[in-house]
Amino acid sequence: MKALVTGGAGFIGSHIVDELVRRNAEVVVYDNLSTGFARRLEDSVSTGHARLVHADVLDHDALIREMAGAEQVFHLAANADVRGGKDHTRVDVDQNILGTHAVLEAMRIAGVRRIVFTSSATVYGEPEVFPTPEYYGPILQTSLYGASKLAAEALIQAYCEYFGMRSHSFRFVSWIGERYSHGVIYDFVKKLQEDPTELEILGDGNQRKSYLHVEDGIRGIFLAIEKMEAPKNVINLGHEEFMNVTDLARVVCNEMGLANVRFRFTGGIRGWLGDSPLVHLDISRMKAVGFSPKVGIEEGVRRTVRYLLANPWLLDTREKM
Amino acid sequence: MKALVTGGAGFIGSHIVDELVRRNAEVVVYDNLSTGFARRLEDSVSTGHARLVHADVLDHDALIREMAGAEQVFHLAANADVRGGKDHTRVDVDQNILGTHAVLEAMRIAGVRRIVFTSSATVYGEPEVFPTPEYYGPILQTSLYGASKLAAEALIQAYCEYFGMRSHSFRFVSWIGERYSHGVIYDFVKKLQEDPTELEILGDGNQRKSYLHVEDGIRGIFLAIEKMEAPKNVINLGHEEFMNVTDLARVVCNEMGLANVRFRFTGGIRGWLGDSPLVHLDISRMKAVGFSPKVGIEEGVRRTVRYLLANPWLLDTREKM
Repeated sequence: MKALVTGGAGFIGSHIVDELVRRNAEVVVYDNLSTGFARRLEDSVSTGHARLVHADVLDHDALIREMAGAEQVFHLAANADVRGGKDHTRVDVDQNILGTHAVLEAMRIAGVRRIVFTSSATVYGEPEVFPTPEYYGPILQTSLYGASKLAAEALIQAYCEYFGMRSHSFRFVSWIGERYSHGVIYDFVKKLQEDPTELEILGDGNQRKSYLHVEDGIRGIFLAIEKMEAPKNVINLGHEEFMNVTDLARVVCNEMGLANVRFRFTGGIRGWLGDSPLVHLDISRMKAVGFSPKVGIEEGVRRTVRYLLANPWLLDTREKM
Repeated sequence: MKALVTGGAGFIGSHIVDELVRRNAEVVVYDNLSTGFARRLEDSVSTGHARLVHADVLDHDALIREMAGAEQVFHLAANADVRGGKDHTRVDVDQNILGTHAVLEAMRIAGVRRIVFTSSATVYGEPEVFPTPEYYGPILQTSLYGASKLAAEALIQAYCEYFGMRSHSFRFVSWIGERYSHGVIYDFVKKLQEDPTELEILGDGNQRKSYLHVEDGIRGIFLAIEKMEAPKNVINLGHEEFMNVTDLARVVCNEMGLANVRFRFTGGIRGWLGDSPLVHLDISRMKAVGFSPKVGIEEGVRRTVRYLLANPWLLDTREKM
């Protein structure tokens, strides 16, 4: 089986590549390396069954060429900066909407019929039901990032209808774990290394979020692909637990061996415009196919901190994030 | 009050322009005339309070220039060919998604805070609940047209969140009535003029749809704008009645004075790939602000046929549709 993974040099993408190689697939890793790292792929590439193509999804010719013969696409390439839409109002449109359309066009032309898409819990905006099920509606967007992910889901479904494709669109909570390189834990570790006495926390610290460890997430994705056979699947992939940001900061400090860190809150119930004060997904659909997260959030946060501390090169590349 | 109406030379757009002029607004009609007609605007333009700008929404400079000083935007410019997405997979992305983004960017730059958007019942795909309420979910797309309308709704909501805008996105059933120039009644009249003995009907004729007369629709839009004050409104605008396609064909034949027309069905429960066998919206939200359609569907269809027969120039411009 040949698979193509866009964004395959990213945190989540590289774990998907590894899992595909374990499952004896031949993998084309398609990544523009804007935020990805080739070194994440060393193990998989060394097997001879994964190959990195350094190119952008908007390079239509390259994408169509590499798509040839693939049976499955994992589309992860995206702008991952959830916060930046207000200042950069075109980025999510280009990278997430047009990028997804380019992937779908290449699939149509190459005759590829299966796509896994990494959507996001941000598509729910600020819902009024928690945990939030997939059928919650109408979902009103609060960010261009969320809007672009919902738009991408919609385009994928239209292509499924027209061209006989099957899709699994996963609405993710934040992922954490080994190879993590972007997000609140990253920010906290970085800030605490610069100043171990005080930590700035965006918002009032009461924002509550779920975090899913990458081992659980990867298992969940492959389980859902195997078990959910509808042409168009929209699937929450999250954790039954959640943790508020202040508690998360405490765990990070503790894992770093720091005591008496003063927390300074920027205030407000949101960390940034478009942030959601509570992200907690109903994962009944995943549980119905046998999924249950095994890594608790606190343990996952600790493992993530340990990973970051063991990989200082990641913390030196802030500009690349 | 200055208002800008994209697609203002279209069927629905020109009625909005007329209503705005009646309400003493100064109206910029922004239309690329790809499917619009300047003659629809003769009455409004003759008042001196409406002005037609012949330009495309993707012409950013022109759009920003015309947007200056506007208080409200009615964004109707769009690809209106619901059926063509399978063959032309880029049209809905360009005209409906990027077109809407261009309008939002111009609003942001010009400081315009209110937008009315004409979305569509097609965003529901093939729902399992009828009449379908706004909170139905998850909505799975069956066409690129529907996907592009949902994407546009999502982008609008993100801009509302970021830039303090207010939006009313109306999910429409098919509109009919005076100035109608595109859709099933148009196709039937045209076909029957060419061959009054036989009528080809797409699908098995059992597809059931709601149709809203333009007088009801325009009243509904302005009522909702006035009464619904949330920042992001998603509103079904339809009719409590529906009619199947075969019955609609009978009404068209009868109004044209044709008896004994043989119906030839192309078969299948859908008229085309991405068509929905039943479109029937829950309009409780509109009713809660006092809306109720006054024109029954049969009467509306008859009036539409009479309008088309009285305006043969419309039937001669098939290529433009």
